[in-house]
Amino acid sequence: MVGMRICFIGDSFVSGAYDGECLGWAGRISAAARGRGHDVSPYNLGIRGETSLQISKRWRQEAEVRQAAQQEGRLVFEFGVNDAREVNGKRQLEPDRSLAAARGILAEAVAWKPTLMIGPPPGGDEARNGRVQELSEMLAALCREISVPYFDSYTALLPSGIFVASTKSVDGTHPSAAGYAEWARVIDAWPAWRAWLP
Amino acid sequence: MVGMRICFIGDSFVSGAYDGECLGWAGRISAAARGRGHDVSPYNLGIRGETSLQISKRWRQEAEVRQAAQQEGRLVFEFGVNDAREVNGKRQLEPDRSLAAARGILAEAVAWKPTLMIGPPPGGDEARNGRVQELSEMLAALCREISVPYFDSYTALLPSGIFVASTKSVDGTHPSAAGYAEWARVIDAWPAWRAWLP
Repeated sequence: MVGMRICFIGDSFVSGAYDGECLGWAGRISAAARGRGHDVSPYNLGIRGETSLQISKRWRQEAEVRQAAQQEGRLVFEFGVNDAREVNGKRQLEPDRSLAAARGILAEAVAWKPTLMIGPPPGGDEARNGRVQELSEMLAALCREISVPYFDSYTALLPSGIFVASTKSVDGTHPSAAGYAEWARVIDAWPAWRAWLP
Repeated sequence: MVGMRICFIGDSFVSGAYDGECLGWAGRISAAARGRGHDVSPYNLGIRGETSLQISKRWRQEAEVRQAAQQEGRLVFEFGVNDAREVNGKRQLEPDRSLAAARGILAEAVAWKPTLMIGPPPGGDEARNGRVQELSEMLAALCREISVPYFDSYTALLPSGIFVASTKSVDGTHPSAAGYAEWARVIDAWPAWRAWLP
């Protein structure tokens, strides 16, 4: 079995902000993969507050230095909520700019290494949820076009209610450990992820 | 209480290689700090296989983009075992080059942000242990000179035997989850760490 180095690149949801266990979904699905016997080395490159535009400027260099000749390199992205967030009444990144940044990142990524995209999640802010859902649909269409498997977190996390309830117990945006565990559970069951790490 | 962003910078021991729980010591002491009520955002910048020389080339840029105006920035380094490791019978970095790289990193770091240095740990290879112990003593002297608190992992982890035994159950170098937990326990009790996060 060949070892695998996976760079998880994105925002605070990747870094696991407010998770009392400091794992986030990335740590949980990596630990689960190790538990199934895989030699996987996760690199968590989530940064709080970042939009797709900020991620576009740093991801490649950070991922480059984390490659190794002996191990396969893989990329998993997650971003979008900060793009759709309003600061002082102004959306941080308009949809066309988000989509352009996402296209730049994901097209370059998938031409280089196997790549997955995890869509942005819902939260406790109804108005923002509408913008996140719209952006998620645009990201899904982009990913279909460039053949990057897309996980629709927004739709996956709404039904159970665990995730959104957990964000309301934190800051209305970030989940607690229970919310991250729920997110990890649904990603870990995603066939595109399991194709990498059965 | 002001939030704190801590960059944990170093090698595979920082990234938590072979830890079934995907936390490493950095994740465990961060989770413990969150458990004590602190608003702490850890950024794990450990890369497997890196020497002090490799770390010297990337750490500043990676740490720069992880700062935020609203939160205090802190730096925690750990490296050394890869410097002292022999590959095809040749030490990867001679002590004088290790020390020069470490001085470059740590002097720049402490002039910028509050900084701690965690020394390299012992393992299951006796000959390498001698070289690691020698390098650890040199790093300790350097840190005294430039006023960076130094945690002597080598000396702290030998007595209980838990850590070294755990490396023998893995690959002779990296600990299991139990070994990382032991390392986290001793760092978490270190006054220099607790001065940041009581």
